[in-house]
Amino acid sequence: MGREKKIKEKKIPQAAIIRLPIYLRYLNELAQEGINVISSNELAELAGSNGPQLRKDLSYLGEFGTRGVGYDVERLAHYISSFMGLNKEQSVAIIGAGKLGTALCRYKGFAEKGFKICVIFDDDPNKIGKNIDDLLIEDIKNLEKELKEKNVEICIMAVPASQAQNIADKLVLYGINAILNFAPISLKVPENVVTRQIDLSVELQILSFFKVLAQ
Amino acid sequence: MGREKKIKEKKIPQAAIIRLPIYLRYLNELAQEGINVISSNELAELAGSNGPQLRKDLSYLGEFGTRGVGYDVERLAHYISSFMGLNKEQSVAIIGAGKLGTALCRYKGFAEKGFKICVIFDDDPNKIGKNIDDLLIEDIKNLEKELKEKNVEICIMAVPASQAQNIADKLVLYGINAILNFAPISLKVPENVVTRQIDLSVELQILSFFKVLAQ
Repeated sequence: MGREKKIKEKKIPQAAIIRLPIYLRYLNELAQEGINVISSNELAELAGSNGPQLRKDLSYLGEFGTRGVGYDVERLAHYISSFMGLNKEQSVAIIGAGKLGTALCRYKGFAEKGFKICVIFDDDPNKIGKNIDDLLIEDIKNLEKELKEKNVEICIMAVPASQAQNIADKLVLYGINAILNFAPISLKVPENVVTRQIDLSVELQILSFFKVLAQ
Repeated sequence: MGREKKIKEKKIPQAAIIRLPIYLRYLNELAQEGINVISSNELAELAGSNGPQLRKDLSYLGEFGTRGVGYDVERLAHYISSFMGLNKEQSVAIIGAGKLGTALCRYKGFAEKGFKICVIFDDDPNKIGKNIDDLLIEDIKNLEKELKEKNVEICIMAVPASQAQNIADKLVLYGINAILNFAPISLKVPENVVTRQIDLSVELQILSFFKVLAQ
């Protein structure tokens, strides 16, 4: 039985999936600080969770840690990484070579986490054929061909809201089933396609309201 | 009794606060499409919530809607906006005039939602004094003075991870209590300061894992 089938059979709640990479980030930070062991309560507190929830979340990954001893930081980090399939490089495409697309293209954090930006697209003749560092801006007309040739698994959309749905439809048509969307509109996609949205204004709205509550 | 005190006494759960701007975004999209009325179940489905949860979330705002009739789209949008204090302009500063800071500085979506980028800082002598469109890049040494003069309420940090905690400490010292952090480290701030983090790699990690589960 493969890893993917095992995961599906365990029916991990979405909320737990979203917390796993957060635990991972903190574990990596701890490892960098030279901390080798951490209790579930300490790790939970760092990650804005609580002990029982963290232990429940990690229980989906199998047996882990010894009661009263705490977690081995590096081992747990490696275990979460491997469970989430993050220990192999994945090819990523960016759609839109505007300000945001260009900034994302140059963001070094992706490569550090195993996400390789291997192609960027635009429809502007003034941009097509130019370079962003060592990456050529491709014509959006070649979307299907380039996605296939470069084995793209995840697409990042940094396009205006007015174009986002149209582009998402094309990505789905060409077999992409994971999209990170920066356009401030809600994409309609089939059930087998997963999207995450970063809506910058919504983040400021949430902050703005929390600020009032915290005062 | 002021709006802020009323809100605090109602003890709205954080999860509800995070959903309110999402409802708002969908309501604004519906209004643009010319749709005047929507049922709670329909709005909930659009926003990835469910009817009872949406009705509970909105119950924190007071009585709203008539059973069986649905919500008046524009009126509900206005009500959420006003409840969250989003119907006034707020001044925002960006720290870091690198690729991401510059892209954020030029992002038009902020102004549309009432968030005015009024100053951007950097510590690089090659950047200080230059312009991003009509905004001058200020010396980070003038942080305190500029934040006060421009009545900045929210700061966006687009700085390297190694500098993020140091800069967050300064922002807190100078009275900022709302920070949107793009650096991939977890900021330590006092309890009365609210932070939100956009960790781009974490988003790709979540997508990557959901993708496996959805297949």
